[in-house]
Amino acid sequence: MTGLKQQLLGLVEQDLGEIETALHANLTPHLDLVKQVAGHLIFSGGKRLRPLLIVLSARICGHEDPFIPKFAAIFEYLHTATLLHDDVIDGASMRRGKPVANSIWGAPITVLVGDFLLARAMCIAAETENPKIIRVVSEMTEGMSQGEILQLMRKGDIHFTEEDYMTVIRNKTGILIEGACRTGAILAGATSDREKALTEYGGHLGIVFQIADDILDYIADSGELGKTVGADLREGKLTLPVIHALKHAEAADRTRMEAIISDTDFSPVDFSELTRLLNKYGGIEYAQKLAAHHVSAAKEILADFEPSPTRQTLFLLADYALHRRT
Amino acid sequence: MTGLKQQLLGLVEQDLGEIETALHANLTPHLDLVKQVAGHLIFSGGKRLRPLLIVLSARICGHEDPFIPKFAAIFEYLHTATLLHDDVIDGASMRRGKPVANSIWGAPITVLVGDFLLARAMCIAAETENPKIIRVVSEMTEGMSQGEILQLMRKGDIHFTEEDYMTVIRNKTGILIEGACRTGAILAGATSDREKALTEYGGHLGIVFQIADDILDYIADSGELGKTVGADLREGKLTLPVIHALKHAEAADRTRMEAIISDTDFSPVDFSELTRLLNKYGGIEYAQKLAAHHVSAAKEILADFEPSPTRQTLFLLADYALHRRT
Repeated sequence: MTGLKQQLLGLVEQDLGEIETALHANLTPHLDLVKQVAGHLIFSGGKRLRPLLIVLSARICGHEDPFIPKFAAIFEYLHTATLLHDDVIDGASMRRGKPVANSIWGAPITVLVGDFLLARAMCIAAETENPKIIRVVSEMTEGMSQGEILQLMRKGDIHFTEEDYMTVIRNKTGILIEGACRTGAILAGATSDREKALTEYGGHLGIVFQIADDILDYIADSGELGKTVGADLREGKLTLPVIHALKHAEAADRTRMEAIISDTDFSPVDFSELTRLLNKYGGIEYAQKLAAHHVSAAKEILADFEPSPTRQTLFLLADYALHRRT
Repeated sequence: MTGLKQQLLGLVEQDLGEIETALHANLTPHLDLVKQVAGHLIFSGGKRLRPLLIVLSARICGHEDPFIPKFAAIFEYLHTATLLHDDVIDGASMRRGKPVANSIWGAPITVLVGDFLLARAMCIAAETENPKIIRVVSEMTEGMSQGEILQLMRKGDIHFTEEDYMTVIRNKTGILIEGACRTGAILAGATSDREKALTEYGGHLGIVFQIADDILDYIADSGELGKTVGADLREGKLTLPVIHALKHAEAADRTRMEAIISDTDFSPVDFSELTRLLNKYGGIEYAQKLAAHHVSAAKEILADFEPSPTRQTLFLLADYALHRRT
């Protein structure tokens, strides 16, 4: 797995450098404090998946434009805005191994800096002067907020189904990743077939990324993950491994799982028992299989594109999305 | 004063009806809860100043377009988004005579519904397919968030100057009102001179509206105002009447005022004493005079436009902005 990550990093090193430069150059608030709060999260070792996807999607459609890293910043800023508001809403304490912004500067400033980043992203989108991109970005933002609300409404609901889960992750994660790929294709002036193909690739990749994230919340090492394992459950978020296990558990095990889930103050012993039951009913395995299915679907779409280093990078990204450890 | 309000309402009755229809028709979330939370504030008797200004600004430039009420909704949604986030940040309890959304649905949902409205506004802006409008709307949103942050950073700071105050109100209130007038002119395809003139009219009007709001917080009747008098001070917001009085007070009075301001749990007796000192040092009077100066400036700009019922309405709006009682 480390091999895969190294291989990928080698392929996108220059792009990541240009994206980093654009993320610094386009964060231009009038107030130092805004730069400080926004920068705390933006420059804390994010994977830059979304901006990278615009760059790669534009390139696979034959387009190289010096403004692409700038437009790619739209997606990292939107992503950061969402994370800032999420951390306020969830009362989280750590992200990417650092204390969350709201624990340092308080919820009010954090909410407003999230608003600033949303607006900053829209300003850059407006600079493209491309009505289609502006529409994609604004509709995406609208969809994401609804995904977040849906998730919040169903917090702690043990009747949350796999279908509900898929709706939430498509909205809160899928839309943005899909939108990044689509925007790259639009910037490249790709044919509608290619635009559609890259949008679908992004849709599958988004699902893989979120399912992998939700699996990591049960099996990762907290230090490596940069946040506490089991955080989702503590916030009342039922994810695929739990949903699947609950559905297939025998009555007694189901009752036990429900009791642990309902108690947001569960102990480490409770959590171990829950993960044991998740494994007993194949929850993790099922989530991994479903994600692997979407990895294959994403790769299949790429098969229609000519072989190129960029296509190879997008292939590897799909594998990395599932097999990463952080 | 009631006469002025009635006269104005008579002139804009049909426009207000069309704006109301557009506000309902364009609030189209997938989730009922979002409609409920957003609607709680949107349909709670706001003055519709911002959408009305687009309609009137377009009309005074000779433009009538059936889509204008729809585009006008952008500004009411943005305004509502800001109020929702403000009420979370300030921990307010009442607005427009009703409990604030966060006291009913909680801060997390309220923050996300604010995000939804920001995004909805941008989606409608995108539908104009007018790059200039899209740019105005997104830059406005960015400026507003910074105005809010600046205000928050300076909460409770007794060294907050009149200049600081003007910067904050220009950003948090002025930008949106100015932007509404400007957008109306752009939609009408007005000359750049007329666009500039209406932008300036809006700038003055925004200042008048905010100063009047800040005066009302000291002199209004709580029942009529729909929120508690003295709320700004309790939230640590120093507004013009206080800033002016503090600057001109004798040492002993200044010390007494600072003590009341620093104590966010001040009693009704303390508050009466503060208003007495505001009057002693002409704080209210000074604020009224400054606002009246901006009313005159706004009207002077309109003098360059041909006489028409629309111009008359914009004249009356400037008077109403200062003399309203709610």
